[in-house]
Amino acid sequence: MSISMYQASIPHFVRMLGNLSLILDKTSVHAEAKKIDQAVFINARLAPDMYPLSRQVQIAADMAKACAARLAGIEVPRYEDNETTLADLRARIAKTIAFLQSVNVDQINGSDGRTVTIKMHDKEIVYSGQHYLLEIVIPHFYFHVTTAYAILRHHGVELGKSDYINNE
Amino acid sequence: MSISMYQASIPHFVRMLGNLSLILDKTSVHAEAKKIDQAVFINARLAPDMYPLSRQVQIAADMAKACAARLAGIEVPRYEDNETTLADLRARIAKTIAFLQSVNVDQINGSDGRTVTIKMHDKEIVYSGQHYLLEIVIPHFYFHVTTAYAILRHHGVELGKSDYINNE
Repeated sequence: MSISMYQASIPHFVRMLGNLSLILDKTSVHAEAKKIDQAVFINARLAPDMYPLSRQVQIAADMAKACAARLAGIEVPRYEDNETTLADLRARIAKTIAFLQSVNVDQINGSDGRTVTIKMHDKEIVYSGQHYLLEIVIPHFYFHVTTAYAILRHHGVELGKSDYINNE
Repeated sequence: MSISMYQASIPHFVRMLGNLSLILDKTSVHAEAKKIDQAVFINARLAPDMYPLSRQVQIAADMAKACAARLAGIEVPRYEDNETTLADLRARIAKTIAFLQSVNVDQINGSDGRTVTIKMHDKEIVYSGQHYLLEIVIPHFYFHVTTAYAILRHHGVELGKSDYINNE
């Protein structure tokens, strides 16, 4: 027995993005209670040359979206990066989750040996589906979800590890 | 075709812990160059109620160690949490990687349906090997590696995403 490509990918992206959406909701409540402009959190960073919260959320969602599309062999949907409120970021996540859930098990399974071609600047990198999922998408996806959480913890939002990893 | 339990676990822990060790080495060089006591970094946190760098490194390594042992059905090695320098933390990682590499493919493969029992306080939680790996270990492991990186970035160590995810 082993793990299918679907089991290793989509359900975890859906779960962690759902958790991230709840974290953003708690951030809204916190901002309102403390009378802090939401923009303070949306633009917050851990270092001047790290991305702010908004970009961390967008990239986390985009890693999952691109992974689902590329493994399924369909076009990657393009979403504009135009979110300006926490509600916008939650809507971006909801749209991403709906897309992830629209890709079915049969489209993903068997994609471990499928060729995934990624264009970066002026070159193309070719991976197997399995390499792409395990060595690229998963480390990057969790990096951006965790960094979003870390930014908010650092800025005083009352969150705990269980918000990151609930529904286990 | 699908992913084996080994493919989904050990090589990624080894790779990311190796990267984390190189990150700690860069931190030593940075501390020396700036004449900053290493303890500043080792005890650094992103929030007063988050763990410091040392604990983030220990937990990341321990998640991988426990996962390898539990999936293989062998006893989890116990290491004391007594690291006080960056070199100590790198040695902890090296010891963990050596253990991960001592567990072979056949011990891990087929563990997706094996029962994993975790004692937490006064209760026991039982998972399948697959659930334990995908829904518990992987999100926690990447959380702690990322948070270690984020602590150091926040405290001015010159690192980039490629230090987190090199050797891809």
